[in-house]
Amino acid sequence: MSLTIRLHISTPTARTARLYCSRKPDLYSAAAVFKLRPCLHSNPSAPLVFSRTRRMISASAVKSSSLIEADGGSLVDLVVPEGRRAAIVSEAESLPKVKLTKIDVEWVHVISEGWASPLRGFMREDEYLQSLHFNSLRLGNGTVVNMSIPIVLAIDDEAKERIGGSKDIGLVSHGGDLIAILRSIQIYKHNKEERIARTWGTTAPGLPYVEEVITPAGNWLIGGDLEVLKPIKYNDGLDHYRLSPQQLRDEFEHRKADAVFAFQLRNPVHNGHALLMNDTRRRLLEMGYKNPILLLHPLGGFTKADDVPLDIRMEQHSKVLEDGVLDPETTIVAIFPSPMHYAGPTEVQWHAKARINAGANFYIVGRDPAGMGHPTEKRDLYDPDHGKKVLSMAPGLEKLNILPFRVAAYDTLAKEMAFFDPSRAKDFLFISGTKMRAYARSGENPPQGFMCPKGWEVLVKYYESLQADDEAAAHKSALLSA
Amino acid sequence: MSLTIRLHISTPTARTARLYCSRKPDLYSAAAVFKLRPCLHSNPSAPLVFSRTRRMISASAVKSSSLIEADGGSLVDLVVPEGRRAAIVSEAESLPKVKLTKIDVEWVHVISEGWASPLRGFMREDEYLQSLHFNSLRLGNGTVVNMSIPIVLAIDDEAKERIGGSKDIGLVSHGGDLIAILRSIQIYKHNKEERIARTWGTTAPGLPYVEEVITPAGNWLIGGDLEVLKPIKYNDGLDHYRLSPQQLRDEFEHRKADAVFAFQLRNPVHNGHALLMNDTRRRLLEMGYKNPILLLHPLGGFTKADDVPLDIRMEQHSKVLEDGVLDPETTIVAIFPSPMHYAGPTEVQWHAKARINAGANFYIVGRDPAGMGHPTEKRDLYDPDHGKKVLSMAPGLEKLNILPFRVAAYDTLAKEMAFFDPSRAKDFLFISGTKMRAYARSGENPPQGFMCPKGWEVLVKYYESLQADDEAAAHKSALLSA
Repeated sequence: MSLTIRLHISTPTARTARLYCSRKPDLYSAAAVFKLRPCLHSNPSAPLVFSRTRRMISASAVKSSSLIEADGGSLVDLVVPEGRRAAIVSEAESLPKVKLTKIDVEWVHVISEGWASPLRGFMREDEYLQSLHFNSLRLGNGTVVNMSIPIVLAIDDEAKERIGGSKDIGLVSHGGDLIAILRSIQIYKHNKEERIARTWGTTAPGLPYVEEVITPAGNWLIGGDLEVLKPIKYNDGLDHYRLSPQQLRDEFEHRKADAVFAFQLRNPVHNGHALLMNDTRRRLLEMGYKNPILLLHPLGGFTKADDVPLDIRMEQHSKVLEDGVLDPETTIVAIFPSPMHYAGPTEVQWHAKARINAGANFYIVGRDPAGMGHPTEKRDLYDPDHGKKVLSMAPGLEKLNILPFRVAAYDTLAKEMAFFDPSRAKDFLFISGTKMRAYARSGENPPQGFMCPKGWEVLVKYYESLQADDEAAAHKSALLSA
Repeated sequence: MSLTIRLHISTPTARTARLYCSRKPDLYSAAAVFKLRPCLHSNPSAPLVFSRTRRMISASAVKSSSLIEADGGSLVDLVVPEGRRAAIVSEAESLPKVKLTKIDVEWVHVISEGWASPLRGFMREDEYLQSLHFNSLRLGNGTVVNMSIPIVLAIDDEAKERIGGSKDIGLVSHGGDLIAILRSIQIYKHNKEERIARTWGTTAPGLPYVEEVITPAGNWLIGGDLEVLKPIKYNDGLDHYRLSPQQLRDEFEHRKADAVFAFQLRNPVHNGHALLMNDTRRRLLEMGYKNPILLLHPLGGFTKADDVPLDIRMEQHSKVLEDGVLDPETTIVAIFPSPMHYAGPTEVQWHAKARINAGANFYIVGRDPAGMGHPTEKRDLYDPDHGKKVLSMAPGLEKLNILPFRVAAYDTLAKEMAFFDPSRAKDFLFISGTKMRAYARSGENPPQGFMCPKGWEVLVKYYESLQADDEAAAHKSALLSA
């Protein structure tokens, strides 16, 4: 999700009009929330054309909130109950062990709390193949849930050998703690090239998750059912932000939310984001919802080296609430524990699906979600519009209301972030993430009103510390080479 | 589909038992037809385990035949009726034109006859994205049809420029004939790398369809609704084999088929294939069907250079029927006009889906369907078992009964092709496609009973002609360099 928020909502034309159609007849309004839904006409005598309707979603027309059902019917929770813990720990100690990486543990965390419901462990081959080929899983009752990212555990030949014919294994964290049992395991081939190609749509070198996770991984995948010995904690001072889907649902219930709208991000919040979130709330109120709650949900797992680190982002987000840019009464800030794939249209489905499990029935999607630059070519890796298109057509996400971003930019007349008005385009300034980082690095202030001052200070301090590190490193290297 | 037919049907074990489960309770039998169906248990308190059941499909238990409904409800037919032809031709002449390649015309043929029903033209972007990401299309009524291969038409910058703002265009064959109108067009970006990666699971150089079709193609795709001026003909002496899905359905009705089982191939038929097809018929009769008809359905579009050409294969197939290896009374030999992608698990879905549209309700699948060697590594490009697994789990193919191959090999005691008996493994000889080609090239006969003699003669003559060509070329090159 880029810091510049754009959505090219063109008026329906012969071309764009084919892209979407709403599934049910509904109310129309110029001040519309877009509900993008793909469909092919089933009447084979009709051409396969598409209609795109702008509609005002009334509270009764959308899927009922409070709260949306978890995928598969109920939320998965794989943490062993207190009473069974001692017995399970003792059993785990007797099993062959597999050592996990830091990112493997993030996935154990994700699975154990039910973000990937109904998945109950690392994928076996049938789940892996369905995820890879269909971005979805078929349940026993014939229903389909979205599952666009393979959630898998890789092992090497040596570990496979060691496991031998064991049915269950113990999982040990990178820190050396026994954290889980994986039961009724299945070991199958890890075809890295195929996994990468089908997940990212490229095999170009330089994909962050591939370089960090897949390339160094073993040639086998091991699936099975997880039992996690106790809740995963990071002890980094941010665990209180790591609310599980159940805790989030409890909080939404507690606040008597009748709509929950989720905003996934991995960047600092600027006033354009805030405008969008506040405007979404306003529109949900207009639709008849009485108490829409915003889930501001920064991703907390693995991110690439040049992204702003989690602790800095959380500090920045807390300043945004302190400064009153977002209303703490109607906002919950929590960490989404998933690692980041940067897999664009494939990954945005995962981001949305996980939020269903956390109770969100509205999902805000922007330009080029989960995208990045092509690692070896001078272009975006993904078409910036494919994310929201694919999301709107994804199997298993029909029950989620997709809210595309409206374009926000810096209005140089009003001196604030505002929805872009094409009739006076020259008054607007688009401040990209790169531009923002350049401001922060140089110590120069961005235009007044771009970000709340306390939030901006957090970033300036972070980039100053980076610069200090760089200078120290340069100094050290100069001394060494002298 | 390799010439050696193998299926590793192991007895259910803790590991393999997780892979499949049948959707309904049914009869069990040791002499079973396997109906592989994936599912996740929807009860979230149950582990996501899988059961695999061997079952005897009774005629009442399987989806009713005679005949299976075309995808989307009825068969697409895009050939302009005689009465409108003159007007449409005259309209087409006035439109901007796009020149097609030979393979583009094969796709026009495929689409126009309804093999890809409910698709009514080259894909627009929404269909393309659904195909690429989900291997399926959602219809207006919420049902899902399989569509694993993007069926698209590429144009270059110059053609895009020429089309300008036109709503409709004329399509001109590689031979210069105006053959179709594409209506209500949409032009969108052709991201070749992403298309290749997501379709083949690799971007390695040397994929035949990529090198022949995609690499030389333009950077834009153009979708729209097809109207084809008259039925596509090739005038190669084989058009009488090119039965449309409607013609096949008429023939099945005429023969009063109550089950149709399709066998896709792009290689000569040996007696192992024949054994399998005859055995399938026997088993369908045992299930209670009165008149199962075999659709022996060689692929007739683009194939790679070292595959046996279509005319030779058709001659070989006709000898197989002449020799009585297959019963002409219960067999229809016809050409499937699709080009070949060699995209393994992704493509086998297309092969199966198209046969639903032609009226087949049983589909035979073998080892490594639509597979090939990895273009740059010494291994199969796809896991040989993934094809049938993916096929059995594919969205939109639930109504098709999947029949996995049983292992057939040459029984050196019985001197015939027979189902492999692991208790006397040493008596069996596996004759690979490579081995068979080596026999034919050297003029050596394969073991008696491997292939009917007249069919074998066709191949020997073909390889002799190749050798003669090679020698002539070598002679010519020697003369030139002398």
